[in-house]
Amino acid sequence: MKQRVVYPGSFDPVTYGHIDIIKRAAHMFDEVIVAVASNASKKPLFSLEDRVAMLKKVTRNLKGVSVDSFDCLMVDYVSRKNIKIVIRGLRMISDFEYEFQMALTNRKLNDKIETMFMMPNESYSFVSSKLIKEVAILGANLSEFVPSFVEQKLKKVLQKNK
Amino acid sequence: MKQRVVYPGSFDPVTYGHIDIIKRAAHMFDEVIVAVASNASKKPLFSLEDRVAMLKKVTRNLKGVSVDSFDCLMVDYVSRKNIKIVIRGLRMISDFEYEFQMALTNRKLNDKIETMFMMPNESYSFVSSKLIKEVAILGANLSEFVPSFVEQKLKKVLQKNK
Amino acid sequence: MKQRVVYPGSFDPVTYGHIDIIKRAAHMFDEVIVAVASNASKKPLFSLEDRVAMLKKVTRNLKGVSVDSFDCLMVDYVSRKNIKIVIRGLRMISDFEYEFQMALTNRKLNDKIETMFMMPNESYSFVSSKLIKEVAILGANLSEFVPSFVEQKLKKVLQKNK
Amino acid sequence: MKQRVVYPGSFDPVTYGHIDIIKRAAHMFDEVIVAVASNASKKPLFSLEDRVAMLKKVTRNLKGVSVDSFDCLMVDYVSRKNIKIVIRGLRMISDFEYEFQMALTNRKLNDKIETMFMMPNESYSFVSSKLIKEVAILGANLSEFVPSFVEQKLKKVLQKNK
Amino acid sequence: MKQRVVYPGSFDPVTYGHIDIIKRAAHMFDEVIVAVASNASKKPLFSLEDRVAMLKKVTRNLKGVSVDSFDCLMVDYVSRKNIKIVIRGLRMISDFEYEFQMALTNRKLNDKIETMFMMPNESYSFVSSKLIKEVAILGANLSEFVPSFVEQKLKKVLQKNK
Amino acid sequence: MKQRVVYPGSFDPVTYGHIDIIKRAAHMFDEVIVAVASNASKKPLFSLEDRVAMLKKVTRNLKGVSVDSFDCLMVDYVSRKNIKIVIRGLRMISDFEYEFQMALTNRKLNDKIETMFMMPNESYSFVSSKLIKEVAILGANLSEFVPSFVEQKLKKVLQKNK
Repeated sequence: MKQRVVYPGSFDPVTYGHIDIIKRAAHMFDEVIVAVASNASKKPLFSLEDRVAMLKKVTRNLKGVSVDSFDCLMVDYVSRKNIKIVIRGLRMISDFEYEFQMALTNRKLNDKIETMFMMPNESYSFVSSKLIKEVAILGANLSEFVPSFVEQKLKKVLQKNK
Repeated sequence: MKQRVVYPGSFDPVTYGHIDIIKRAAHMFDEVIVAVASNASKKPLFSLEDRVAMLKKVTRNLKGVSVDSFDCLMVDYVSRKNIKIVIRGLRMISDFEYEFQMALTNRKLNDKIETMFMMPNESYSFVSSKLIKEVAILGANLSEFVPSFVEQKLKKVLQKNK
Repeated sequence: MKQRVVYPGSFDPVTYGHIDIIKRAAHMFDEVIVAVASNASKKPLFSLEDRVAMLKKVTRNLKGVSVDSFDCLMVDYVSRKNIKIVIRGLRMISDFEYEFQMALTNRKLNDKIETMFMMPNESYSFVSSKLIKEVAILGANLSEFVPSFVEQKLKKVLQKNK
Repeated sequence: MKQRVVYPGSFDPVTYGHIDIIKRAAHMFDEVIVAVASNASKKPLFSLEDRVAMLKKVTRNLKGVSVDSFDCLMVDYVSRKNIKIVIRGLRMISDFEYEFQMALTNRKLNDKIETMFMMPNESYSFVSSKLIKEVAILGANLSEFVPSFVEQKLKKVLQKNK
Repeated sequence: MKQRVVYPGSFDPVTYGHIDIIKRAAHMFDEVIVAVASNASKKPLFSLEDRVAMLKKVTRNLKGVSVDSFDCLMVDYVSRKNIKIVIRGLRMISDFEYEFQMALTNRKLNDKIETMFMMPNESYSFVSSKLIKEVAILGANLSEFVPSFVEQKLKKVLQKNK
Repeated sequence: MKQRVVYPGSFDPVTYGHIDIIKRAAHMFDEVIVAVASNASKKPLFSLEDRVAMLKKVTRNLKGVSVDSFDCLMVDYVSRKNIKIVIRGLRMISDFEYEFQMALTNRKLNDKIETMFMMPNESYSFVSSKLIKEVAILGANLSEFVPSFVEQKLKKVLQKNK
């Protein structure tokens, strides 16, 4: 069987940590769908369109990777695509707890879908979208954390929100 | 001596995890007072009255269990009741840290009251009121997490808040 | 009903942390049985008799506290005593994991017995029988960790084992 | 591409937790090789042959699942099989740390092999081969933790080792 | 070389836990600069001026300790002072994760500055500015957690914000 | 005052993770004494002499760094040297717990000595002497974990112990 997986997330914005996971998944599976959650209730910094566009740009040369979005239950989205495997990155203990809680909840909602966890490269194990936004506000150089076009977009948005 | 205990919480809303703890406590102690914190500053989704009413409904057949509420320091409430034992459920590491910090703080506030921790059944070890509300907004079936009348009330409130 | 509880452990040897838990339990329950596990397979430093004797000495003035031992499954021991509550102290995250694993295993073995966790005073939250033995070998002053007669017994045993 | 994965471990002995992971993996991948590490230096309770035989028995009706063993570096074994994905179960925080340390070490040894983590059913999240052996010595009923033929074999071996 | 260190934080408000770390640092280093982050985006309860003033009052008798503030990246502030060591207190696992993530991010931003972690006295290991504010709202006696003039200021501010 | 620190440990054998901490400490303090614990009771793989010799070789070009050994309580050793600061590396949660327990125990034994924790580079955050020995037995290439002369010594010792 052709193995297809979904990698869901907020990607607000995409970081080198996310990109590392996408590349690893693309190396292992035939098809990887990066699926952006609209997460309207979490008030993301970037619009859904911007988040999708940034992901499309960083994955445009990766074979078997596509970008999509959803605004329903993640398991419903995955089920409609007829996919069985969901990929999530795990960096730290606190990720672990939240991710397990979410994955067990998702399993109760749909027990045909399995969450599999991957480790990013240890160089990205501390990169968090939240922390990046905090230091970006203070003018930090983000070249170690995100691609340069993401850094520019991020600083423009933060400027506007001031 | 007749052993009375208080099980305080937000119960916003009550879940099968809470109900499991209440049943275990009722099996061990003569009297269990489920005490709902008003927590006005935390902006609960349900009113204090609704949370008390839901708890009364789910505990109406449990011998020795009553439901009450308080809007003061928890240790002051417990102390006025002349009770020495406070029950709290522990599900995960992050619970553990917050609960210990709170219990040690409470001990400094009143060293005659002891917090005792219980484990819910492992089937409920990942059920969280917060996560339930997140998936409820997206239309998830909640029958594994809360009684059906709570699911209905929850969906009605979320509809209204949209 | 008269509330009786068991506080099981290796107590190899008893520390101020254990004593703190015993006192708290005695303050809350009518009867506290401190039950020493023979744990033959773990090769304790002190004999079962010595561990029981030390506990008897430190608890001799505590009302409602008795000392006993067992060499079977803990839940079988507790069940034969017709007791429903087992007390365990929790100090750290690693305790938490081991204790939960053990408590859930015990619940599968006998679901009528409930484990309840208590916190020692924060001054004793880092005292471990294992660490005490490690520093005792190197001649450390143990007056902050164990009663002085335990310190003497410990140093005598370690001397003999050299 | 046909997706093949290796699920390595000590399996000393196999538990319902392991079996749950094997079934989930078999549901998602074309071929699952359960690979028993000889682990001579860790002095397993069961011989390599016994551990392989028990796994063969419990997996004999699972399509796509085979059992094998290895006594070299795990990544070398997996690489020789021309496989890219290693499966590991994650139950608790302490698993998480050890497993991540091992997976990152393995990645340094061979960066073409990826470790993916899966969650067992929460009913098995506390089942540990080590704990099972501890309670088995004391005569516990193991029917909740291992298949009955494993329980019998375990009790026979423990009897012999006494 | 004369050893100078920076102890940065929000100090909203200063607690006995912070004061314990400041005293320990002052005992080890020639000069300790307590540096208050303006953290405008986190909406602190106390103004920057109030937080600085409270710290000046509690440290006025400590040799080598001064109080300052900054509203830029912490590593830029420390770098301009020509200092190499940043001190942070660690109390719990959740601190540990956040602090490590922040420290590794800071190291990427400036690899000449090193974060060193210290433990407060275990009596203060559970004192958190956030929890203190929660119980203060409910009228708790704070004498175990903060100096009395801080308690008074805190209750006045909370009264005003009601 | 000239700032001197002790970095104690087993160093069985020294890894790139240890070397990273030594370099960071040497960058910040005037004098760094790497102090090897004899730890006779822990049965190290390498003799005390070998461990000291390996450390001397890897630190021979680091200004201000010296190597020593001790077979008493660490705090007694540090106190005799008239030093106030002990350095320890922290990599993971499990380190954190053990290290804090040890540091608090040491503080009770001598409250004039302070333990300060540092983070290794994240590339070494998973390198453990124990794990290295496990994979070395199976013939792994260790060039990412230890200097090549250490790898050779390690493989020779493991060969001999077989």
